[in-house]
Amino acid sequence: MLVLITYDVNTEDAAGRKRLRHVAKECVKHGQRVQCSVFECLLDNAQCKVLQATLCKIIDIEKDSLRFYYLGKNYKNKVEHFGAKAGYDPEGTLIF
Amino acid sequence: MLVLITYDVNTEDAAGRKRLRHVAKECVKHGQRVQCSVFECLLDNAQCKVLQATLCKIIDIEKDSLRFYYLGKNYKNKVEHFGAKAGYDPEGTLIF
Repeated sequence: MLVLITYDVNTEDAAGRKRLRHVAKECVKHGQRVQCSVFECLLDNAQCKVLQATLCKIIDIEKDSLRFYYLGKNYKNKVEHFGAKAGYDPEGTLIF
Repeated sequence: MLVLITYDVNTEDAAGRKRLRHVAKECVKHGQRVQCSVFECLLDNAQCKVLQATLCKIIDIEKDSLRFYYLGKNYKNKVEHFGAKAGYDPEGTLIF
């Protein structure tokens, strides 16, 4: 299923900037960064729970916000993009 | 239906910062800001098309990115939030 992960991390201090880098570093292992703080990941339920637990250990739940949106398996007509840096099709063929 | 709107606006110049304010100003008329550049809006198809056209006039399609995610009518179990500033239930009762 396609899982959309969006986050706001409070970067007022160095610790926050470190958390921001760590959240992005984790998410990039699992999917595609489509905007600055928005990732699209193809995950099954178990993978999703593991990633949630990992990210929840990284963020400061008093200061940061993390949102998961579940778009299911038939997601292609549930996403529209306008403007720069359109994403790639996570299940599309890679041409080298 | 619940429509998630996420955007990245290039704010390297004053024009970009102005675009960012305008995009947020438009979105806030239609729904709830759940993160810095993430809005949840309850829209029908017609309202969604109108908002898309409005936002597409505001952004610079060479520099900015705008994404729409369609979560349908049964969205309550498609959204999970962790951390600060949980959103409100757009269809929940308002207590004054």
